[in-house]
Amino acid sequence: MARQGQKPQFVRTIQVRNENRVGVLASVIGTISDNGGDIGDIRLVSQSPRWVVRDIDVTLESLEQLDNVLTNLHAIHESRVLEVRDEVLAAHVGGKIRIQPTRPLTSIADLGRIYTPGVGQVCRHLHEDPSAVDLYTMIGNTVAIVTDGTAILGLGNLGPQAGMPVMEGKSALLAHLVGINGIPILLRTTDPEEIAQTVANISPAYGVIQLEDIASPHCFEVEELVKERVDIPVFHDDQQGTAAVVVAALLNACKVKGLDIRKQKIGQIGLGAAGLAIAKALILLTGSPVLGADLQPDAVARLVKGGGQSADIEQIMGVCDVVIATTGAANLIKPAMIRRGQIIFALSNPRPEIDPDEAEKAGALVAASGSSINNLLCYPGVCRGLLDARATRAIPEMFQAASETLVDLTDEGSLLPGALDKHVHAAVAAAVARVALEHGLARREADMVVMRELAEATAFGVP
Amino acid sequence: MARQGQKPQFVRTIQVRNENRVGVLASVIGTISDNGGDIGDIRLVSQSPRWVVRDIDVTLESLEQLDNVLTNLHAIHESRVLEVRDEVLAAHVGGKIRIQPTRPLTSIADLGRIYTPGVGQVCRHLHEDPSAVDLYTMIGNTVAIVTDGTAILGLGNLGPQAGMPVMEGKSALLAHLVGINGIPILLRTTDPEEIAQTVANISPAYGVIQLEDIASPHCFEVEELVKERVDIPVFHDDQQGTAAVVVAALLNACKVKGLDIRKQKIGQIGLGAAGLAIAKALILLTGSPVLGADLQPDAVARLVKGGGQSADIEQIMGVCDVVIATTGAANLIKPAMIRRGQIIFALSNPRPEIDPDEAEKAGALVAASGSSINNLLCYPGVCRGLLDARATRAIPEMFQAASETLVDLTDEGSLLPGALDKHVHAAVAAAVARVALEHGLARREADMVVMRELAEATAFGVP
Repeated sequence: MARQGQKPQFVRTIQVRNENRVGVLASVIGTISDNGGDIGDIRLVSQSPRWVVRDIDVTLESLEQLDNVLTNLHAIHESRVLEVRDEVLAAHVGGKIRIQPTRPLTSIADLGRIYTPGVGQVCRHLHEDPSAVDLYTMIGNTVAIVTDGTAILGLGNLGPQAGMPVMEGKSALLAHLVGINGIPILLRTTDPEEIAQTVANISPAYGVIQLEDIASPHCFEVEELVKERVDIPVFHDDQQGTAAVVVAALLNACKVKGLDIRKQKIGQIGLGAAGLAIAKALILLTGSPVLGADLQPDAVARLVKGGGQSADIEQIMGVCDVVIATTGAANLIKPAMIRRGQIIFALSNPRPEIDPDEAEKAGALVAASGSSINNLLCYPGVCRGLLDARATRAIPEMFQAASETLVDLTDEGSLLPGALDKHVHAAVAAAVARVALEHGLARREADMVVMRELAEATAFGVP
Repeated sequence: MARQGQKPQFVRTIQVRNENRVGVLASVIGTISDNGGDIGDIRLVSQSPRWVVRDIDVTLESLEQLDNVLTNLHAIHESRVLEVRDEVLAAHVGGKIRIQPTRPLTSIADLGRIYTPGVGQVCRHLHEDPSAVDLYTMIGNTVAIVTDGTAILGLGNLGPQAGMPVMEGKSALLAHLVGINGIPILLRTTDPEEIAQTVANISPAYGVIQLEDIASPHCFEVEELVKERVDIPVFHDDQQGTAAVVVAALLNACKVKGLDIRKQKIGQIGLGAAGLAIAKALILLTGSPVLGADLQPDAVARLVKGGGQSADIEQIMGVCDVVIATTGAANLIKPAMIRRGQIIFALSNPRPEIDPDEAEKAGALVAASGSSINNLLCYPGVCRGLLDARATRAIPEMFQAASETLVDLTDEGSLLPGALDKHVHAAVAAAVARVALEHGLARREADMVVMRELAEATAFGVP
């Protein structure tokens, strides 16, 4: 469910026609900011000696705020608002991904190759040699992105269809960043047993199962049950994916400040899917326990079982050098609770437990929120690496390798590399594939047989 | 399973370099034909005053046949075979469909629109107004193509992964012909109850469920169970889709010969998924019983329950004016069994019950095989029409409307329109959508609300 105190955020594009004079744009911008609007891109639409038309993207918290912005813009005589557009909604019309043929389909000869009668030969071949499936179908390049809709972003249980825009977005990014087909699977059940059976039943079409936005605590059981029943890698992005990115950001924060992460006392507030996974990854990395707090005793028990220690928020804020919060509760951490020199990651979306600027003002050495620690940096490379290696399982060492790669590729002084940089995702993929090879989890030999067969099957010389 | 007596068919591309003289190509072609190769496309690759290089697509029945072709080509001194390629296999490398983003993804602003933070607003909107899902996601334009791999083409139970090339081909054609996303779903179970539950559990991502290549008799139970559990249209392409195309071809055959279909005695040999559906559609159309034969008493019982009559093959061949065969048994019908003036549709793939030429030689008025009666003419238009109408169910009247549309669009003297003609599929879609509207199965009102909302939400003028 959406928590109390969280304010929704949304974006509108305001098109203004300003008199072409120095100072008008500045006063428009000032008016928007003064009324609580966050300025995004500003694009020039048209220009004449007299007028300048611009699109201004503005992030807002309420329709009232939008009304205030518009009312106050109305008072600027040198500027006129031409329209207000919702470009986010417009970008979603018809969906954000589509299926496209990879081969031409205009002639009977094309049809004979990709459909009947040609396709029968390929089916028979795959029946005789199942290892060729990765070569002659999309299966080896396809990931199922599976959700039951119970934990959509930080918004809670919205149901699977309302979660589709997130799944389509994940899929669009998989395609764009690493060339993988991500198929959104929306589940009409939230029962772990039934989810696992359903996912197992549809698993033959995929090379990887990526669980997404499934709520804690049933996400843990879902993950375990699915892993037991399929012979391809399974991971839960909100756990292992998010943790890998947070660990990388924390390693970089320590690097920037010259700290040894193994000497930091670390506290984790909120032990849901992401929180528990972050704590476990940090226990694995540092070899020391992480202090953890959660309103649910079961959640704390899971941490203790994984090598952590129970604590309350006050204890964590009082003794820890590093505090990571993933509670979903906006403004949970008050500035007075911050101790000088702490590293504070307040990661709840869309509103953090404390605003990073406020945290730094209150004495934090480094502070960051979920908007700068983007889990988009992990799952595309991990999926690419798992598929490239034809891996049979996903293991913690792969996510650790992903974290290390992200650290290596971060510019000095930053927490993370750019999320849209394809080189970063390719490097994560290579690191993950390497771990698969080192741990004997890569079906590379089969792969090479297939490639040899391709060379033989598709062109052979005749004397 | 593949039946005895069926010969596989496959295509090779033979590249030849001929002396640039009259008669050389003709003798190459003659040699290929004489050795049993069927000539497909011939493409000019390069030409000089001395040489002409051509690619020749050849359909063959065995590797021995290919060897014979090549040995005999070797004897033509003015021609040299440069290479033999398998372009069908090559066309399948990496799969025949892929996911592609519909929006640009290069800037942080793009990311904010299609992923976080923008996407949260869309999810909340869909949670509050579920009817907007068709507008702001791909769901309303997406079909699940579901198989358990038990009846892949005419090849039998090859398993779901070996059936993937067919599913990808169907999907590629859906995308190309009618702009629909077809998602292949490969099932690891053949139990009707479990199939139904699995399909129901993943149904929220789709606007239509298309069952595909599921064997008789469990396909009947699967179809019924899935229909009970989802609130979107469900059809089995091998039943209703194939039947609609066969009915259209039969109507055209009658039209060409000036016959009234209601006065023809019709026999159906083979009462599997397609055969039973064809018989039922013809009973619905003519109001008269169809004679049916099958080795399985259960299959005959299903026909009788649907208004047909039990018969054996000899009776059917002896008394029927129209004989349709869907047995999977190549060469089941001997020329001596044909009576003068019969219409014979021998539809088993890849090898018909009797070669159409032989049947006509033996006296058949019209004869056709599965290669000229392509079920590709039905499912794309049906899916498009169901989605356009936001239909809640698929009903027999829709497939009847599809048949009638195909008849209307067939050139005089032909059995069916061209399968790659997009206008044909658009016309079928319109006919299907019309039936949905007439039968109160279209969610058009909701749709119009959504369209109005789009207009309001994405651009509103400000005074």
